[in-house]
Parts: sequence; structure tokens; C-alpha cells
Amino acid sequence: MATSLISRQLALSLQKNLWLSAPGCRYVSKAAAKTQVEFDYDGPSMKTTVPGPRSQELTKQLGVIQNVGAVNFFCNYEESRGNYLVDVDGNRMLDIYTQISSIPIGYNHPALLKLMTNPNNLSTFVNRPALGILPPENFPDKLTESLISVAPSGMTRVQTMACGSCSNENAYKAMFIWYRNKERGHKTPSDEDLSSCMINQAPGCPDLSILSFMGGFHGRTLGCLATTHSKVIHKLDVPSFDWPIAPFPKLKYPLEEFTRENAQEEARCLEEVEDLIVKWRQKGMPVAGIVIEPIQAEGGDNHASPDFFKQLRKIARKHGCAFHVDEVQTGGGGTGKFWAHEHWGMDDPADIVSFSKKLLTGGYYHKDELQADKPYRIFNTWMGDPSKNLFLSEVLNVIRRENLLEEVTRSGKALLHGLYELQAQYPGILSAARGQGTFCAIDICDDATRDRILVKARDKGVLLGGCGDRSIRFRPALVFKEYHVHLFLNIFNDVLANLK
Amino acid sequence: MATSLISRQLALSLQKNLWLSAPGCRYVSKAAAKTQVEFDYDGPSMKTTVPGPRSQELTKQLGVIQNVGAVNFFCNYEESRGNYLVDVDGNRMLDIYTQISSIPIGYNHPALLKLMTNPNNLSTFVNRPALGILPPENFPDKLTESLISVAPSGMTRVQTMACGSCSNENAYKAMFIWYRNKERGHKTPSDEDLSSCMINQAPGCPDLSILSFMGGFHGRTLGCLATTHSKVIHKLDVPSFDWPIAPFPKLKYPLEEFTRENAQEEARCLEEVEDLIVKWRQKGMPVAGIVIEPIQAEGGDNHASPDFFKQLRKIARKHGCAFHVDEVQTGGGGTGKFWAHEHWGMDDPADIVSFSKKLLTGGYYHKDELQADKPYRIFNTWMGDPSKNLFLSEVLNVIRRENLLEEVTRSGKALLHGLYELQAQYPGILSAARGQGTFCAIDICDDATRDRILVKARDKGVLLGGCGDRSIRFRPALVFKEYHVHLFLNIFNDVLANLK
Repeated sequence: MATSLISRQLALSLQKNLWLSAPGCRYVSKAAAKTQVEFDYDGPSMKTTVPGPRSQELTKQLGVIQNVGAVNFFCNYEESRGNYLVDVDGNRMLDIYTQISSIPIGYNHPALLKLMTNPNNLSTFVNRPALGILPPENFPDKLTESLISVAPSGMTRVQTMACGSCSNENAYKAMFIWYRNKERGHKTPSDEDLSSCMINQAPGCPDLSILSFMGGFHGRTLGCLATTHSKVIHKLDVPSFDWPIAPFPKLKYPLEEFTRENAQEEARCLEEVEDLIVKWRQKGMPVAGIVIEPIQAEGGDNHASPDFFKQLRKIARKHGCAFHVDEVQTGGGGTGKFWAHEHWGMDDPADIVSFSKKLLTGGYYHKDELQADKPYRIFNTWMGDPSKNLFLSEVLNVIRRENLLEEVTRSGKALLHGLYELQAQYPGILSAARGQGTFCAIDICDDATRDRILVKARDKGVLLGGCGDRSIRFRPALVFKEYHVHLFLNIFNDVLANLK
Repeated sequence: MATSLISRQLALSLQKNLWLSAPGCRYVSKAAAKTQVEFDYDGPSMKTTVPGPRSQELTKQLGVIQNVGAVNFFCNYEESRGNYLVDVDGNRMLDIYTQISSIPIGYNHPALLKLMTNPNNLSTFVNRPALGILPPENFPDKLTESLISVAPSGMTRVQTMACGSCSNENAYKAMFIWYRNKERGHKTPSDEDLSSCMINQAPGCPDLSILSFMGGFHGRTLGCLATTHSKVIHKLDVPSFDWPIAPFPKLKYPLEEFTRENAQEEARCLEEVEDLIVKWRQKGMPVAGIVIEPIQAEGGDNHASPDFFKQLRKIARKHGCAFHVDEVQTGGGGTGKFWAHEHWGMDDPADIVSFSKKLLTGGYYHKDELQADKPYRIFNTWMGDPSKNLFLSEVLNVIRRENLLEEVTRSGKALLHGLYELQAQYPGILSAARGQGTFCAIDICDDATRDRILVKARDKGVLLGGCGDRSIRFRPALVFKEYHVHLFLNIFNDVLANLK
């Protein structure tokens, strides 16, 4: 903690020499190599405002078929490269949102294109198997060289799924099954269990719950949605479960400057967690599992300290609840470690870790005892998609070969320091810069200003995403280098300087 | 109905001449061309019992990573062709289960392989977009030429999703949103709606329900699972919603011989549906939607008459409930029509039709008024996968070019007639042969015998799947010709004749 504080201050003072004081006039550090991404473009290039005329025309076309209210613009994925997303009007944008954080090593990475042209891989794409019953010959090997090679500490088992929501839904089921087997003393279910479950009634469909956190996001299918509490638009009008919701710590940033207040806030939340577990047990709806993100992403990039997670893990163990760490958005290297929970420094960080997005396939790791006792309890037709495992293997090769986690750590430091500087320069607009690796965020004074900044940045060739009520989240690919950081900071500074 | 009865009896009498009466000694009809599937093999070829030694070895390997209790054997997808699945021990089986009904036009179809080698398609595989915000340029065109070209009657809107469960989960959400907007008179939600939904409470998370049917299967995520009632193994230990469950008609087969009894049974079930809708409204949990399969598949291939579905549709309309037809297993041509609900002959068959499996992408069609009123209400990161739409376009081309729906109807007739004959020949073992197109099933005297038959057929080179308590379901690809039907019937007869 102390080291990071010193290095931040050192970097800040060093950075200052590289900046001109006039707003809108910031120059790229000479120290940063121009680019180390050979398949990248050398900068944004804007031809129209966004969405341009072609995007607008296509949006109209698609509007006949779907709700297009969320469509930003249409993309030319063929022409997109590395950190740059090209749209259908020929605009080329530095992409710091990467398809909601789901593009691991940039667009059209040569290693992935090469994989596609290998005739040995054709059949994997063309014949999608029912993995749970008829897996392909190379499935154990592919799992071993991909997902198992990056398994969280203490976990050797993994179940693939098609997307993040399915991953969490099935992880919850695994926790419920584990919990009920424990309650039954691992005996055969009673006749009453069997008959009542068919009509959705207890004891077969038990009154169990999952404890989640206010501000958390775990997906939008009905089970997941009962643990998602980030925005009204996700939840309104959908029936839900009466499950306990704990407060997530509201910390002050930078964390290292507010250790005492933050520790108090975390203690308050942990106490509430224990109270809720007891209360829901008394209500007859025991907490089978606790689910939490290492950094609440959709909810506003809310951080908590490693100590908070360590204590929470202990509380889960003490009360016999499974501990599920949802790394759907944080997993895959963006924080500078492959899993964000590695920052906690624990040998036994969780009972379940779920993933999707940058991992290209959904799924979850689990400890041995969280494996369902019988086949077909955790099951569906596809159970993932081996063609995504193929891509993941290659992505992991690239991450290792190009030391991308170290690169992310380096770029992340430059990004966070740049944000600290900007927030010192624009205190009326920016605050609470925070992050791990390039998984950074900053708060804007209000949501209207945030939305204006997003649009203005886009028109200058930088694609960003919002989160929470008034934050901007940075979610570049792992090939986002220091060079790109400075490119971004210059443009961002420009936008802020000219903000009316 | 009358025509089908006559043609069945005619076919039966014709077929008899082609059969030898001795058990285990049935010959292929000369009338059937040997094969019209050019990339097919010419028959099964068995080298070992299944699973063979290599499969067993790989199962052990995979067992270190996952529960392998459901694994049948490992496959060599590279060597599989058309209707034949090849395993890792060199066994080649006629596949009448097709990855739980999810392979539309056989293994390694040349048209799909060709699509993979087209360099213009590479980027679609390598850059998976967040479709809801940044769709690719060809997305409206691809949707139009694929999913929209086969849209159910009365529907011009479609939303893709990653799998069947996600499709149904989001279809349910669409029905809830539609229902609540109606209840609110399409006014802005109240402050109470907004604040209560964040903590899972009514009125924001309303006490609404989906009416489903006993024996139905709609997926295994928590929302879907509350409407699934086919097997204990799917539901045990998972919390659920107190939603109404109606009886599905238990009909006698062949349907045309029991029209009066069956009509009575259907009337009883429809009455129960109305009672439940009233009862749940009185309980304060109004039924927002009714979900049903055109043929209950996982639950045992249970059929109902077109009239039943017409009446049910009327009841839904009368009570203001949305009507959701789940075609995840029945859709895509197996019944001889692209959608099984086309057999009902209705212009306005449903408000929502969901799909997955043979369509290669999940998703659902819906009527205009079922579209959520705001963006991001039906949303997730991927919202499907354009690479699957590519394959689907090509599959639809093949279906049209090769008149595969007509072929399915022809093969289906041969299959059902063959099953009728066998059940006449083995009345102690077989009963209730039934089906539409090649989407057929037959009951076996008990589950142990059913399971023995499945294993014995497999060892003779025919891969089949079970469903319900003691049924066998037939789910061949659309390239399953009359030739393959007779090949199967010969082997099946052999198995039955030698059943100890």
C-alpha cells in the first residue's frame, strides 16, 4: 500500500514535467514507444460524427426487426484492428470499451485469424456437439491447456457454459445442490423431496437464498437478476426472489489516503452481512451462497480492500455458505492479474469462480465438493462451445508470449496516473479516479455531463463506456499499451478543456 | 385426419409385402433409393462395444475436470459425415439423436465447410460483437435472409440469444414487461415501482406468474426451471416460484383412433387451465403468459391436437395472457414443417415463439406489442452470435435447395409406418408409436427395457435417445432419407427380436 502511494506520487511529479499547463494541450510522453501492436492502426481517424449516415440508415433497417434503442453505431469488423474499432462510415476509434469488456487481445488478432485457416479446426466450428454427452476427442486436452491452465488457486474443476448469465445460474444451482446435500447429511432425497420439486414446492424446491450486494451485477436471467442490484432498467417488472441484499462498501478514493474511514465502512458492511445471514436463516430461507464481484463493474466500478474479501470469505465459511466470486467482467487479465481475486493474495479465495466475456466462453470453476453429486443436475444441450475454447487457448498463448499481464500493469499505472492528473486539473468535473491494471474508472460531476463527455470523446475518436450513475469505465483490450494511454489522455484532456 | 388414416393403412398393407415374417429378418424396401446424401457413409460400422477403450480412457481424463456421468462416448467429429457419427474407437453410428436434436443437416455438410473457407467470413468468427450496441454491417441483412425468412405467421420481429434457456428467460421477461405496462396503462412507472424493484420487492418486482404444463421442459436456469416439469433430476434442490402448472393432455395413440376420448381429455385440461388462471389472479399472482411446447419432447413426446392449441390460444387471449410457444426442440423442420405450430393451421398462432438447437442460434420471435418499451430491458453482452447466423443462413439455403421439409415428411411417413408395424409385431414391448415428420417416438414396456434397447441398438450402430419415463425419441437430421429409415428399422427389429 505504502509503496504504491510513493510510486504514484513519484509518477505524478515526473508526469508534470511532460505536460504543458494550458488546457487542451497535452503531449505524449516520449518515453512511450509508439506502438508495440504490429497489427494496430497508428491512431483514430474520424470522417463523420457518430453515428454517421450509413450507421443511421442501418439502424433504421434493423429497427424493423429489433429494438435499436441501445445501438451506438454499426461496425466494420473486417477493417477493425488491434485497439481500433472501425465503423461503417469509415470512422476509426480507439476502443476503450471493447464490446463491454469482451475482446481480450484486440480486433482481428493475427493469431486468431491463423487459427481459423487451419483446416484441422474446421470441424470444431461446423459440428457443435452436446458437450455433456458426446464430447470431441480433444476436449480434455483443450480444457487442460486453456481453462485449467489458468484455474484459480485451489480449483481443478471447471464447467463451461454459453454465456455469463448461464454460468451464474448454474453456479447458483451448484451451490443450492451442495447446500441441500449437506442439510440431508448426503442421504437419498425423501419421497416428499421428489414429489414436491415437480410442482415447485418445498422441500423439493427449498426456500434457500443467495446473498448478494447492493450495486452488484450478475446477469439478467431470473435467477441472476435476483442478485443484480445495479440499475432499475435491469429489474423493473420482473418477478424475483426475496433474497438478502447486503450493502457494498462505499469507499473513498484514492483508497490509500482513506484507509481508516474505508476500513470502518467495510466493517459496517461485513457486520450487516452476518446479520442478514442470521435473519434469513430465522426466516426459513437460509443463505446457501454469497455472490460478489471483486470490483463492482456495471454498478459503478466500486472497489473493496483485500481485507474485506478475506473477512467475507471467513464469514461464508463460518456460516456454512458457499462463496462465489463472479469474475465475468474482471476475469481475463484487465486488472493486471488473470483473475482480479489474485490481488487478495489468498490460497483459497472462493468455492466458485464464474467467468465469460474475455474468456470467450462462459463457465465456472468450483471446488471438488461443489460438483453436483449426479449427472444431468448441471446440464443443458450445448454446455458451452468448443470453438470458443479453441480461441481461448490461442488467446492464452498470446497473453503468455507477449507478457500481456505485465503490459497491462504498466499501461494501467500510466492510465491511473494520467487520470489522477486530470482530476487535479479539472476538480469540478472529475473525481475518484480508481483502478487495478487498466480496469480503471473515474467519476464525473453528474450523469448528463458524463453522457456529454462520452459523446464528445467518441466524436474525437475514443470509444468509452459508462457505468454506475455517473462513472466512466475503462475497459481496453490487453494490447492497450502506454502509447495508447497517452493518446487517450490527450484526447480526453481536449474534451474536458472544451467542455461547455 | 381421415386422409392420414387411410394413407397409413394403405402404407401398412403395402409395407407388409416387403417384409419377411421371421423376426430379425427384415429387408430394405427396394423402393427406397440407397442414399441421396452424397457426403454420407453407406451404413454403420462397429469395431468395439461402445464406449470403446479410447472413449473410456478419455472419460477418465475428463473425469478429473468435470462430472462425466452423462458422457456416452467421445467423438471424432472430423470423420463424422451426414447421418453418421464416428467415435474415437472408429465406430460409425447412424445418428438418430443428433446431439439432442441440434444438428440440422448432418455432420460436416459441404455447404457449411465451404462457408468456413470463405475469407470474407473470418472476421465474423474472430470478433464477437456486443450485438445490442455495436452490430456488424451485415447484421440486418443476415437476420432478414435467415431468421426473418422463416418467421412464424404474424411475426416480423426477432431477438437472438446464445442458447435455449436464455431465449426462454428473456421471452418470459418480455411477457412480464408487456403485462405490467398494460396494467399501468402504459404510464411511467411510479417511484415505488422503481425503488422496490432494486430490492426484489413488489410492486417493482411484481407477483406475476407464467402458467406451464406438467411434463413440459423449457430449460434449466431458474426462471425456465420454474416452468419445467419433466424430471426430478432437473428440479430437485433448486428454489422456485409458486407458479400455476396445468395438466397436459394424456392422449391415446394413434390419435385418429381415439378422437373422442382424446377430445374429452383435452377439454378437461383446458378447463383446468382456465381455473388456474382465475385462481392465481385471486391469489394476487396473475398469469402474464402461458408457455407450451407443440410436442412435449423431454417429457416423453406428448402430443395434443391442433384444436387443443387453438382453444388454448383463445383462453390466453380471453384472460389477457401472452401465449408463448416454445419451439426449441420442435423448430427447424423435424416435424416436416419448419415450425411444429404450423400443423395447427393458424394465422396468429402465438405472441412469442422461442427457438435454439437446429436453428444454431437461440432467440425468440415476438409480436410488435411484445417488444420491450425501452432499450436495455432485454439485453446482455453478446445477445447471440453472428457466426451462428451465418451458419443458419446456409442451413436454410440447403433446406430450400434440397426440399428437405418434403424429404422429412416422406421419411417421417416411412418411419412411423415402420414403427406401427414393429409395435404390431412386438406388442409386449412396443406401444404408442407417434410422430410428425421424423419427430417420432415410441413407448417401451418399462424403463429398464428401454435403456437396454438403447444400449443394444448402439452396439449395432444406431444411436438413439430416450425421453419421458420409458419412451424412445427419434431426432434424425433433416437429411435422414427413406433409405436410412429402413436401415434403422432393420437394426431395430434385430434388437427387438433378440431381446432377452
